[in-house]
Amino acid sequence: MSAEADCLFCKIIAGEIPAERVDEDADTIAFMDINPGSTGHALVIPKKHARDLLEIDDDSLSAVAVAAKRLAGRAVDRLGAEGVNLLNCCGPVAWQTVFHFHMHVVPRYTDDSLQLPWRPVAGDPDAIAATAAALRGSD
Amino acid sequence: MSAEADCLFCKIIAGEIPAERVDEDADTIAFMDINPGSTGHALVIPKKHARDLLEIDDDSLSAVAVAAKRLAGRAVDRLGAEGVNLLNCCGPVAWQTVFHFHMHVVPRYTDDSLQLPWRPVAGDPDAIAATAAALRGSD
Repeated sequence: MSAEADCLFCKIIAGEIPAERVDEDADTIAFMDINPGSTGHALVIPKKHARDLLEIDDDSLSAVAVAAKRLAGRAVDRLGAEGVNLLNCCGPVAWQTVFHFHMHVVPRYTDDSLQLPWRPVAGDPDAIAATAAALRGSD
Repeated sequence: MSAEADCLFCKIIAGEIPAERVDEDADTIAFMDINPGSTGHALVIPKKHARDLLEIDDDSLSAVAVAAKRLAGRAVDRLGAEGVNLLNCCGPVAWQTVFHFHMHVVPRYTDDSLQLPWRPVAGDPDAIAATAAALRGSD
């Protein structure tokens, strides 16, 4: 399914590299992160290779999101997770290290040590409005 | 569209509370986060109320994901972002503070100060395998 040469995750899809697989459907597979942030940390990826969020097609993205929801439910039901974070990293500056789109599904527990990536402090309303003006309107 | 009484984001959808809206389609709206982690930080929400990732229906979730991708592209094209993070917080333990599903779209820049929520260190393979066994298999 449009595998990319030298893509680690395409090789996992093809079974050429082992992984602890936990879920599969027509468009996605999921497997455990080997550097987990918490117990049960898994990755959901599209079978069709796409570098990142900017490149993935809408159908693959939707399938990944639904699969991530499914895994989140299992983490709560089976692992005793009290919450879940989904995280996608698009680009090296956003901590992407494998360039095949993946959604982190990170179960959360009261006693874990994860930290929100930013400090939630009030922004400047004028700066926010100016940014909004730039983002608004279709292409 | 199935608004929930006393839900802040349902009131934003209804226009009862102001927000810097930046995008809208049949199933979603997007507006600026008032406590931005970076320039251009926006939230995408479903018009149909759902508390969190565990409750949102698949169609709404897919629509949110596609809208988030659209905004990510605009952040790169119009704001000069070099990458983007998507983050969903499901449950208080996962930093959810408004209980209407929302996806954070956080543009990233070389000089920003965000931090990965976890430390990427190798996990214990046996513990990962045991967790995978619990997550594997349909309900």
